[in-house]
Formats: sequence, C-alpha cells, structure tokens
Amino acid sequence: MQSDLKAALKAAMTDTARAVEDTIGRLLPSTDLAEARLFDAMRYGSLNGGKRLRPFLVMKSADLFGVNPDCAIRVAAAVEMVHSYSLVHDDLPAMDDGELRRGRPTCHRQFDEATAILAGDGLLTFAFEVLADHATHEDPNIRCQLVTALAKAAGGHGMVGGQMLDLIAEHETFDLGTTTRLQRMKTGEMIAFSCEAGGILGKAAPPQRAALRAYAHDLGLAFQIVDDLLDVEGTEAETGKTVGRDAQAGKATFVSILGRDRARSQAEILASQASAHLDIFEGRADMLKAVADFVVARRA
Amino acid sequence: MQSDLKAALKAAMTDTARAVEDTIGRLLPSTDLAEARLFDAMRYGSLNGGKRLRPFLVMKSADLFGVNPDCAIRVAAAVEMVHSYSLVHDDLPAMDDGELRRGRPTCHRQFDEATAILAGDGLLTFAFEVLADHATHEDPNIRCQLVTALAKAAGGHGMVGGQMLDLIAEHETFDLGTTTRLQRMKTGEMIAFSCEAGGILGKAAPPQRAALRAYAHDLGLAFQIVDDLLDVEGTEAETGKTVGRDAQAGKATFVSILGRDRARSQAEILASQASAHLDIFEGRADMLKAVADFVVARRA
Repeated sequence: MQSDLKAALKAAMTDTARAVEDTIGRLLPSTDLAEARLFDAMRYGSLNGGKRLRPFLVMKSADLFGVNPDCAIRVAAAVEMVHSYSLVHDDLPAMDDGELRRGRPTCHRQFDEATAILAGDGLLTFAFEVLADHATHEDPNIRCQLVTALAKAAGGHGMVGGQMLDLIAEHETFDLGTTTRLQRMKTGEMIAFSCEAGGILGKAAPPQRAALRAYAHDLGLAFQIVDDLLDVEGTEAETGKTVGRDAQAGKATFVSILGRDRARSQAEILASQASAHLDIFEGRADMLKAVADFVVARRA
Repeated sequence: MQSDLKAALKAAMTDTARAVEDTIGRLLPSTDLAEARLFDAMRYGSLNGGKRLRPFLVMKSADLFGVNPDCAIRVAAAVEMVHSYSLVHDDLPAMDDGELRRGRPTCHRQFDEATAILAGDGLLTFAFEVLADHATHEDPNIRCQLVTALAKAAGGHGMVGGQMLDLIAEHETFDLGTTTRLQRMKTGEMIAFSCEAGGILGKAAPPQRAALRAYAHDLGLAFQIVDDLLDVEGTEAETGKTVGRDAQAGKATFVSILGRDRARSQAEILASQASAHLDIFEGRADMLKAVADFVVARRA
C-alpha cells in the first residue's frame, strides 16, 4: 500500500470512529433516571474507541452511491451497537469469560453479569429502533430492507449461529469447511451487511451490490484469519484483549488447521481478491481497497 | 363474567395459543445443521404452551379493525418471541436463577447457560426480521411503525429498563411510584405494544389507538399486581414456575407495599377501568373486556 493512501486511510478511519462515537453518544445519552446503570453499561459497552471497522465500511460503501452521510452514520451506529452487544455477551463468564476488551475491563467486570446481559439486550434492541426511524432514510422500504438485512446478519443464520458453532468447537474438532462456515457466520455476515448497507441506502443496482457482497465475503474471511493469527502472535498490550484463548480452549482455527505461514498467505490472497471485486467502481473505491490491506497488516 | 363469555374466552385463547405455536414452529424450523442446538434452544424457549396472552391481545385488537389474521399472527409470533427471550434471559443464574418455567426446566437448565444467552439473542433478533418482512404487511410504513414500537416497548426505556430496575430493587427499597414505573416498563410496555399492534396494522384513528393504549395500561398493571399476588399465594404446581422469589429477595412489590387485600382490590379496580376504556368500540371488544377479568381471576 502506498504510504500516502495508508495515511489517508488512517485519517479517514479516525474521522469515522469519532463520528460514530458522537452519534452513539447522542442517540444514547446518560440519564439520571433510576435505571441509569443500564444506560451507563450500554454506553460503556459501545463507546470505547474501537477501530470502528464496520462503521467505516458502511460510510465508504454509502459514499459510492452519494448517500447523505447524516443517514449513513445512523446505520453505522446501529451496526456498531450490534457488534458491541455481541462482544458484551461473548465476554460473559458463561461464554468466553473475557477480562479485557479494548484495553479496559469487560462490561460484566466493570458492572456485573446481569447488567451486562441487559446492556447487550438493550443495544441490540436499540439498533433496530435506530434503523426503523424516519431519520435513517425517507423511504420506509429502504428502512425495512435495512432491518431485514441486519437481522439476518446478526441472527441464528448469521452471527448468533456462528457463536453457537464457536461454542461447539470447544468440544468438537471442525474441518476447514466447517471452520470457514463458522467464521463466515460469526464475523463475515456482519461485515457483509456493513458493505451492503451502503448499497441498500443508495438503491444500488444488482451488479454493484453483488460486487460489494463479494468484496465483503473475502474481506471478512481475511479479517478472521488475521484475528486467529493475532490470538497466537499478538500480545495483550497490542490487541487490548485476552490472547491465546483459542489454543487454550483447544479450538480449531485457521491457524491450527493451516499453520501460521499458510494462514497468513491465505489472508493476503483473500485481501487482494477482495480488492479486485471493486474494480467495477473504477477508482472510486480506493479507500475500501485500502481497508483490505489494512485488515491484513493490522496488529490489533 | 358471564359463564358463556368465560367459556368463549377460554376457547378463543386456546385457538390463538395453538395458532401462534404453529406460526413460531413454522418460522423457526428444526435444522440438522451443525448449529442445530441453537435452534433447538430457541424452539424450547418459545414453544412451550404458555398462555399466550400477548398474542391474544394482538389478534383481538387486530380483529377490531378487520386486519387479515395471516398478517396479525406474524406480529403475535414476534411479540411472543420477544416475551420468550426475556424469560430465557431473566431466568439465567446471573438474573433470577429460575429452575422452572411453564412447568419445565428453564432453558439454561435444559441446555446450558451460554446456549440460553444465545437463544435469547436469536429470538429477539428474529422477531424484528419477522416484523420487517413483506408478509407482515404490504405497507412498509406500517412495518417500520411495528419495528419502532416493538423496539421501544422492549428496549432500555421499556422492558429491559424495567428488568434493570427489578435488579436494583433487590438492593434499594422503592416507593409505590417507582414500583409502578418499574412494572409499567417491565411488563406494561409489551402488553401495551400487543394491544396497539392491532391498531397499527389496521391504521386505526388516534382516538381508537388512545383507547387501546389506555386499556393496555390498566390491564398491564392489573396483570402485574396479580403476578405479585401469585408469587405470594400461588403454588409451583399452579404457576409452573418458582414462587416466593420476590419476598426471598426482599423486593418491594405491590403486595409488600399495599398488603394482599388492597393489592387485590386495586387489581380489580384497574381491570374494570381497563374494560371501560373499550366502550368506544360499542360491543365489538367484548373479548378484550373479558381478558381483563381473566387476568385478575387467573391462578397461573
């Protein structure tokens, strides 16, 4: 990646991260009602300076179709709320029992388990409220499409189903095919929604939506392979979360199946494949192409 | 309540319960995919022969406006999925630690805690997918209104916020005002949505929607007061769930604040108030009026 593009990507991601943080903060204000603890935990779980990769994908895919950024940022916030809820629930003692998330105590360690469960439930529910609101798009058909697509990506045939498979992987040894399917469901579908959301908002033509979906599919897998590599190679200081959990749990991952070298080269191939799908946009998708390189090069 | 109306209500509730059971079962089929356990737990948590009071309210309020029952039953199923998810999460060890629900082991006892968390998440997510689908209503504006109203009723300012207050009530002693607010959020808002959903589907005029909302408000409070009474007076065999939990946890309830006699008479007053709001429908709402009596007379 050219260093000027790399710098531009970094600046653009920082901008989006700030914008999505502002938007979630505004949509989800603190309160002094008796149930303030719930909203504090919802804010704690979602306002924590993550990379905001998914919001960035929403914003940049929306850019391709000239979507009003004030609308797109609401979808970006909804995606991040769903992603955040999944981390809050995933970190629970009964699930991955995580101690650290983005360099801070996980939600149930900062508050308590019951509050963390409810905060996750609240974030998930609120994401749909945000999508269905008139401010997200003037056309209710588009809003319904967003609700449907997010629910499919996040539900039993998407992220939640992937997390179920991830739990089963602690007791059963999956082959490469099932591991790939697990990761596509657990991580890939939400990344795919993030890319497609721009196309939905911009009423993109089918070939353009297909290109975004293909890009997202390869990007999501590359992302997950690198996640597995970081779980082996990364440090807690770099990643801001507990590392080495997969190996400890004896889970089949891309790294345990392919080995580190093949896993890394697979991630690189997927990233360049992902970029190639965007050629249809003739140079207007350089930032999304840069994301593919970023995903493979990241250390956290 | 006249005994013929009582019999008719019982028969109608049984019909709705069967229809909603069929609908959820069809929308949420078993699978032989690797993640089958998730869908088994989602089915276990939602297909269990509950009273299906909320679906009944959806169907009968929809009836008032001549709504196609094939559409209304989908909304009824979505409401019941959200209600079921809330019970699955509420029963978790970190929350109420329930052993029995509707006479069977709670979801986390039948499966495990992690699966129960995911099953709840999956049911909540799927409810929004069902509402946003074209089959629920041909007008996307109506579908968006349903998504918005359900998300508000179920979220941080509704059910989830009420559950947060319920947890806080274990450590703090609430007065009657806060206890009423807690119950309105925890139970009342979902009951209100169930009644309003028929009005949304049927594009009811504002006075009719206001009447349904007023009915639902009083019905919801009466319902919760009777729940508190059953927690003191009921048996596990009758209610199908663990009883005596509120007193054990030292929680302020309508019964602990008002005493049993005043609590019961308050429930009766609320039930007749609820019925009175429906006079606007001139005899077409007899079944909904009968529900108010049923709610006060129930033993489970």
